[in-house]
Amino acid sequence: MVKNQASLQVIPLGGLGEIGKNMTVFRYEDEMIVVDAGLMFPGEEMLGIDVVIPDYSYLLENKELLMGILLTHGHEDHIGAMPYILRDIEGPVYASRLTLGLLQDKLKEHGVSKVNLNVVKPHSIVRLGKYFQVEFFRVTHSIPGCFGLAITTPVGTVVHTGDFKMDQTPVDGESMDFGRLAELGRRGVLVLMADSTNVERPGFTRSEKEVGGILNSLFGGCEGRIILATFASNVHRIQQVLDAAFQFKRKVAVVGRSMINVVGIAQELQYLRVPDDTVIDIDEIGRYAKNRIVVLCTGSQGEPMSALTRMANNDHRRVEIMPGDTVVISATPIPGNEKLVGKTVNQLYRLGAEVVHEASAGVHASGHASQEELKLMLNLVRPKFFMPVHGEYRHLAKHAQLAHKMGIPSNHVFVGENGQTIEFTKDSGQLSKKVTAGQILVDGLGVGDVGNVVLRDRKQLSEDGMLLVVFGMRRGGHILCAGPDIVSRGFVYVKEADGLLEEARDKALQIIERCGEKNIHDWAGIKGQVREGMARYLYERTRRRPMILPVILEV
Amino acid sequence: MVKNQASLQVIPLGGLGEIGKNMTVFRYEDEMIVVDAGLMFPGEEMLGIDVVIPDYSYLLENKELLMGILLTHGHEDHIGAMPYILRDIEGPVYASRLTLGLLQDKLKEHGVSKVNLNVVKPHSIVRLGKYFQVEFFRVTHSIPGCFGLAITTPVGTVVHTGDFKMDQTPVDGESMDFGRLAELGRRGVLVLMADSTNVERPGFTRSEKEVGGILNSLFGGCEGRIILATFASNVHRIQQVLDAAFQFKRKVAVVGRSMINVVGIAQELQYLRVPDDTVIDIDEIGRYAKNRIVVLCTGSQGEPMSALTRMANNDHRRVEIMPGDTVVISATPIPGNEKLVGKTVNQLYRLGAEVVHEASAGVHASGHASQEELKLMLNLVRPKFFMPVHGEYRHLAKHAQLAHKMGIPSNHVFVGENGQTIEFTKDSGQLSKKVTAGQILVDGLGVGDVGNVVLRDRKQLSEDGMLLVVFGMRRGGHILCAGPDIVSRGFVYVKEADGLLEEARDKALQIIERCGEKNIHDWAGIKGQVREGMARYLYERTRRRPMILPVILEV
Repeated sequence: MVKNQASLQVIPLGGLGEIGKNMTVFRYEDEMIVVDAGLMFPGEEMLGIDVVIPDYSYLLENKELLMGILLTHGHEDHIGAMPYILRDIEGPVYASRLTLGLLQDKLKEHGVSKVNLNVVKPHSIVRLGKYFQVEFFRVTHSIPGCFGLAITTPVGTVVHTGDFKMDQTPVDGESMDFGRLAELGRRGVLVLMADSTNVERPGFTRSEKEVGGILNSLFGGCEGRIILATFASNVHRIQQVLDAAFQFKRKVAVVGRSMINVVGIAQELQYLRVPDDTVIDIDEIGRYAKNRIVVLCTGSQGEPMSALTRMANNDHRRVEIMPGDTVVISATPIPGNEKLVGKTVNQLYRLGAEVVHEASAGVHASGHASQEELKLMLNLVRPKFFMPVHGEYRHLAKHAQLAHKMGIPSNHVFVGENGQTIEFTKDSGQLSKKVTAGQILVDGLGVGDVGNVVLRDRKQLSEDGMLLVVFGMRRGGHILCAGPDIVSRGFVYVKEADGLLEEARDKALQIIERCGEKNIHDWAGIKGQVREGMARYLYERTRRRPMILPVILEV
Repeated sequence: MVKNQASLQVIPLGGLGEIGKNMTVFRYEDEMIVVDAGLMFPGEEMLGIDVVIPDYSYLLENKELLMGILLTHGHEDHIGAMPYILRDIEGPVYASRLTLGLLQDKLKEHGVSKVNLNVVKPHSIVRLGKYFQVEFFRVTHSIPGCFGLAITTPVGTVVHTGDFKMDQTPVDGESMDFGRLAELGRRGVLVLMADSTNVERPGFTRSEKEVGGILNSLFGGCEGRIILATFASNVHRIQQVLDAAFQFKRKVAVVGRSMINVVGIAQELQYLRVPDDTVIDIDEIGRYAKNRIVVLCTGSQGEPMSALTRMANNDHRRVEIMPGDTVVISATPIPGNEKLVGKTVNQLYRLGAEVVHEASAGVHASGHASQEELKLMLNLVRPKFFMPVHGEYRHLAKHAQLAHKMGIPSNHVFVGENGQTIEFTKDSGQLSKKVTAGQILVDGLGVGDVGNVVLRDRKQLSEDGMLLVVFGMRRGGHILCAGPDIVSRGFVYVKEADGLLEEARDKALQIIERCGEKNIHDWAGIKGQVREGMARYLYERTRRRPMILPVILEV
């Protein structure tokens, strides 16, 4: 059935050396499967971009080889690119009920309907094509319905952890399947691909249940309203909020589009048990005493348009923050969001609320494994080869160091990069060819139409604005017959810069007139003179470098 | 001499509810003094802005009342606005030798020379006008030459801590003057104004000397080159780096403009003792074995143009990072810089370096007092009134809570805001009138000429770019006689958007032609039609909102 020399190709297309847009291809001969297809939120330098997805041209080029797409869990960084990919490829897709529920919600929003979705359960084994057999095993993380994957191929088994932590006391009692992992390890695992996000943290990550305990004492000790913000997808956290509210006879009003959405989906799919008579409509909160209210909302990352941010800015239609309120931010800022969260907290204090937000308050637990869990994973699985995944480059590098310290030879550890194929046989692993990989920027309806040129222009415009020099000329002759007019935006405050702009007009006129003396008559040449001359002039006058746009109108 | 009912006005003009641009005015009758005049680095929303300084119009308006400007220490957020203010006001300025050394360096850069600078020493007492007497007492912080101030006025004494921590084992042996503080407290203090930056941290801040111990073991255990980045102004840290290098027979090359600058000034003023034969030129590092080298550089905040960032990007002319190098980032990221620092660390790992950067490695100690030090300060000074200063709003709020818990009645605690005068008599304190306060944005040579309009334009330009519609008309008639031409930047990639821009041109033509039918003939009206019509059209086609600029050229 299988040729002797055939090998397994592991091709990461995203998620290595970055947080987000996770995506990996596994290919054997003329068949391939894909694990995850996530998005990433744009960095500051990607001005105006909405989301970033992996360049999936390799998938499109090899469309007919695709046996299936497997989703480990329902977070954006693992499923967010699916609505784009599923426009071009129907699937089949395999994932847990919750992951598919969240995916369907997205697909609806994007108007994608022709898809092939398949629910899998823990212990499910799915045969994909001739070469791949995938077993889904339970892992714990900050969203329910999470799987790790044991992918059996002709050359051996690959264990892919997905995102995980080893929560010994998960909220829903559904522990990670340690037994199965140990068994896989005993039978022999070719490659382990493991989550590296928290490799810098010593010890074990706290159990989600500990957060529940803290929330309970907080809810019990609080005399005013409680406004609690967390990630909408953290269903276990939400469960604990509902339970604590029920215990202390508080009603819960759910606020924020994604929070309402996820609570609805999770409840419908029975991942969330809402205690009787606990949830009320936000418009009803006025009917209850302050110490009977919990507002559960979005905005734990200080996102500008989110419910909590609006409340903090006194700009939410339904909830007005007032002295006596306790705001709980049950999350830690994702790197890059620290300042936004800090701003929200400051505003809340200004309105007189008390804010519980530092990690030290214990109101959040990470969803990713710390060092001791990562070591345990390596010892359970005992793989021949190791590939750290999910993390910025330093996380991958440190996870590789950790694996090496645990006894895996350096040349059996691959710190990969996106697009770099690694080929495995039964007893060898080596770098192989590079395939197209990178990122596709999504801006409005445009998928991939904004690239470096546009971003460079946006950056220049954002820093010093622009200055237009518009004038009319007759085609074929160097005769200025209208203008030049000067228009600027984002450069100086026009109402107070009359003098400067007047001078700039004179300068432009002078430059255009000198083109004749310099024997420059073609329009591109004239524009070049205007661009250079005006840039130099304005920099001298203001030490700013606005974009100079000479426009010649043919009259 | 003093009228019975006169009161002391404390007027914060910056530094409350924000990190940076510290500045406070103390006024009694027709005399005033100023403490600090710092700058702030712009937030992300302040596109293109270089620095932010306090609006000092109150100072200008009351110029003739000014008896002196007192600087607590030489950090940018306490002296950075001085070059601007000293253009309009000569002083006199009072500060430590190092603070004045750093200030003079800045003044030279700004070409400001006509100033009146006066060195003060610990225990110095300066009489300013009829009403103010200021005593400078030693405090410890992350730069040498730091003072707290005891300002005696006719209604009582104000103690202003400046930035401080209570370092019991400072590197230079110059402890904080606890005895004097206790004595002031015993004699009675009217108001305490204290640094709030670290109020969220329990316990005591680590001594700077502990960092020295960690650096020593690091330097001793390291077999390759050491590249260490820290704040240029942290002279004690630099001293410890030099000492550790000397101990382990390493040479130190200093890299980065501000690092070279500060090391020069600090050495000249004898704040820094450079061990013999320790410092070498960066061009000499090739002459020594790798384990004999330390590169001391700027870039601990991931600043894009700094030495370490250039090295990480393989873009530094003198230093090339290679496997075996150990990079020590002896700092923690200032809020907002986390992602930049993370990026630098990732790049360094990619180049094969080992990076020591987490706070847990112990290679940094904060310069600000934690909760237990803040409590001790309150107990030493035992003020009648308390004003938390230096910090974002939440820090002020928490410091106020702390003071209240320590026994100061709530109505004796003032969480002020910039521009809000607080009036003190011997036994009362109350809010009084508001004065002009705010921020002045500096962009290139422009001080205050960029405001909300310009920033709003820059923001729109940064997100979706712009689209020009240029056409010619004859004055007085609704006759299109040239164009419309379409020019866009930062909106779509023009080379691949021919079709869209062609369509946009047709649309613009249609809109202009319909103006006649609609009986719109004035140019402002026509421009309005174009702006609205094109915005609607482009949003429908792209879901983007570029700035639409209709320009009519009179021909």
